[in-house]
Parts: sequence; structure tokens; C-alpha cells
Amino acid sequence: MQPKLTLVGAGPGDGELITVKGIRALQQADVVLYDDLVNDSLLDFAPNDALKVYVGKRIGKASFTQEQINQMIVQLAQEHGHVVRLKGGDSYIFGRGYEELQYAREYNIPGEVVPGMSSCIAVPASQHIPVTCRGVSESFWVITGTTRHGDLSDDLLLAAQSNATVVVLMGMHKLDKICTMYNQFGRGHLPMAVIQNGTRTDERCVVGQVWEMPRLVAAQGVGAPAVIIIGDVVALHPSYVKAYARSLSELV
Amino acid sequence: MQPKLTLVGAGPGDGELITVKGIRALQQADVVLYDDLVNDSLLDFAPNDALKVYVGKRIGKASFTQEQINQMIVQLAQEHGHVVRLKGGDSYIFGRGYEELQYAREYNIPGEVVPGMSSCIAVPASQHIPVTCRGVSESFWVITGTTRHGDLSDDLLLAAQSNATVVVLMGMHKLDKICTMYNQFGRGHLPMAVIQNGTRTDERCVVGQVWEMPRLVAAQGVGAPAVIIIGDVVALHPSYVKAYARSLSELV
Repeated sequence: MQPKLTLVGAGPGDGELITVKGIRALQQADVVLYDDLVNDSLLDFAPNDALKVYVGKRIGKASFTQEQINQMIVQLAQEHGHVVRLKGGDSYIFGRGYEELQYAREYNIPGEVVPGMSSCIAVPASQHIPVTCRGVSESFWVITGTTRHGDLSDDLLLAAQSNATVVVLMGMHKLDKICTMYNQFGRGHLPMAVIQNGTRTDERCVVGQVWEMPRLVAAQGVGAPAVIIIGDVVALHPSYVKAYARSLSELV
Repeated sequence: MQPKLTLVGAGPGDGELITVKGIRALQQADVVLYDDLVNDSLLDFAPNDALKVYVGKRIGKASFTQEQINQMIVQLAQEHGHVVRLKGGDSYIFGRGYEELQYAREYNIPGEVVPGMSSCIAVPASQHIPVTCRGVSESFWVITGTTRHGDLSDDLLLAAQSNATVVVLMGMHKLDKICTMYNQFGRGHLPMAVIQNGTRTDERCVVGQVWEMPRLVAAQGVGAPAVIIIGDVVALHPSYVKAYARSLSELV
């Protein structure tokens, strides 16, 4: 028996957005450790007799601490062999994948990474919002809304002054702060979208401008997990013109 | 017969990094229009009698102009039905996917998008470089090295002064300019990697610091297509410490 760890990105929600390589890893799993944001149907790809352990990590409600998960990976790999760590999105995008891999390496457990479709790209795409578009945006900047210290990331402060398409993951609890910051930089009229449960059947999207977004989101009861996207590319969303016409009519 | 367009992201090179959803679309294709950077094995998922057309777009050598490709999509959809446009990486990340979809819509051809694994995430991951890492980087910024006007993107100017992990796609012909800019901002000692043919069997990676990278890349004969990644996360690469020790010994 050979202890081994494979980090597999499960994608953003739609079970078909996992890669072929991810499925192959699951098929060869002795143990699957999976998170809250993973589509349950993916577990069916693992062998029937594989151990499937829910370690439910989600913003604000972690069933296990990161340290406990690290220890489980090592212990289960030593006891059972091949551990597949199935994470929502991609393991290296705010997924703490590096920490898990590194921890396992300290116990001489070799690790591999199968990248996953990140919600930062797939969720805007699901709403036909391209994160880059010739003539509109030459770059996109992906930032976490949940930093170690609980503050807004300094990167977001600079991003709000840049021409990049800005994508914020895990930022719904900071929505007001983010919008206020854009307003303070005189950029409250940038197009913005908030997309909840992106790529799932219950996907919901609110499109408008930064200044009005906290009110729109509250009115429509949209909440986490959601992807925030700010920048001119959002104006390409089919309903943006309609949304903007509405906000004008509310003003006059 | 129902004309239809599906943009499918083929992933970064490794044929197994396509999604299940992408394969399903290929299985239902009447026509596949594919690019240079797409793994040929993916074409086998399309029906035997599907028309497979190579439209070979790659930096500096386009077999067809974008306008010609747009027209081919419309004409082939009208004549054959379901056109799958298979693009390297993801269609919305410098892939001109929005333009193709929009062009088809003007001819009442409905379009869908199946997101693809972008090289900006998968290629660093292939070298065990996490684009974000707790305590090291709270964001990553993806920028094209190939703008419409041929200049360096203004976004890159700001990015070089930020704390974001910076990923430059299609930037090898601007490598000297990029490194010079970082040097001018006093950031020439940031860790940097250049990864050619990422996720393919012939993947090659050069790791070092910004100031020495043009020389290293030239010495090792590494060139396009390559992903450039700059930021402290690159120091997590297994060979970075070794590379840096080497550059020090060359200095003294």
C-alpha cells in the first residue's frame, strides 16, 4: 500500500465541469475527503468501497479546522493509500491546497494536483460575462473577500482603481465595504454583477451598478456563496442595459 | 436542422484537462472548428462524420482572420447545424469568445459557452506553484502580453507595483520589456517563472528572479507558447531556492 494525496478541483457546482483527469483520480481513490461546495454526484465516480468523508469547509462554518483536515489526510493516506481531496473550484485559488500538499510532504506522502474549473472564470461565463474582452478589458484580477485578518485585502484597494475586471470570491459579507470603497474612488457607476450558486440549477444573478448593488442584492435576497464581478465587461450582460435603464428611472 | 454554436474551452494542453461537459458538446457536434493550441486527441470525441476544420490561430501566425472565422461559424452552422468552436484554454480569457458568440447571435444562431481550464491557473499548478497562498498572496492578476495596439498593457504597469501574483499570457515576445519594467520599479528581485508547453509532456520551466530571467530563458532556449508568472508564490517552487543560490554564486 502506497500513501498518496491527489488534490482534485471539483469545479464550481455543475457536476459536469469536473475534468476527465479529476474523474480518473476519483476512480482510483481509496479515500475521498470532500467539501461543502462539491457536487455530491461526483462521489459516485469513486469506487463503492472507497471511504468518503465529509469535511465540510465553507465560509463561517468549518466542521473541521485546517489542521484537523491536514492530519486526517496524513492518517488516512497511511492507513488506506490514495487520498483524493475533492475541493470546490480549484485547490490553489483560495483553497489552501498548497498547505495540505506541503503538510503531507512532511510525512513523505507524495502529492499531485489536478486543477479544477474555478468559479472566478466559470461563473461569470455562465452568465455570458467574459472576464476579458478585446477593446473592453485586457486583464482580470481575482481577489479573496476573506483574508486571514478579516479586513478587506489591500489588493482590493488597488484593484478598485485599476482597469482590470475585478472578481471577488467569498466576498458577500464584505459587499457593503467593497461598494463603499468603489464609491469613494468615484467609480460607483461601474457595472457590477453578483452571481449566487453559479453554474448550479438554482443560479441567480443580480446586475447593476456598484452604488446600488447592496440595495439590489438585499431586495432580491441574494447571498453567499456568490461571485462578485466588477468592470465594464459586466455591461455586456444581456440584462445590464435593462437594469441600468431601471436605475435611471428610479432616480428621476 | 437547428444552427447552434457552442464555445468549448479545451484546456491548456493535457487532453485530460477538458471538462465532461466539453466532451458532451463535442459528441454532439456536426462541425468542429479548432485552434493550434488544442490537443488533437480531443477531436476523437466528435462523431466520425463531423466536419473538422483547422482554423489555426496562434500568436503571430493566424491561418484565418477573426472575421473569416466568424463568417465560417455562421455559414457552417447554417449548413450543418451544431458548430463546436474548440479553443485552447478558456474562450473568455483572451480567446475572443465573446466576439464569436455575438457575431453568431446577429444571425440568430444561439450560443452556449462551456468554460475551459485556463492555462493561467493550470500551468502554474502543473509546476506546483499556487497562484494564491495564505500568508503569501491574496490575489492573482491575469494580463495579456498581446494587446490590440502592440504595446504593453497599462494594466501590467500597475500590476508590477501591486502585491498580486501576476500571470501574463501570450507575453514571451515582451519578456524583456516586462522584466525591465519590474526592474525600474525596484522589483527585479521578485521570484518569476516561465513555463513553456505547460501540462504537456514536453513542459519546460525556468525559475529565477525577474532581473535575470531574459538571460536564463535565452540560455535554456525556452519560448512561446509560455505562461509567465511573477510574485512571491513562485518562491514556493521546489527549485527556486536552488535557482536563487545559483544566481548569488554567479554574482560573487
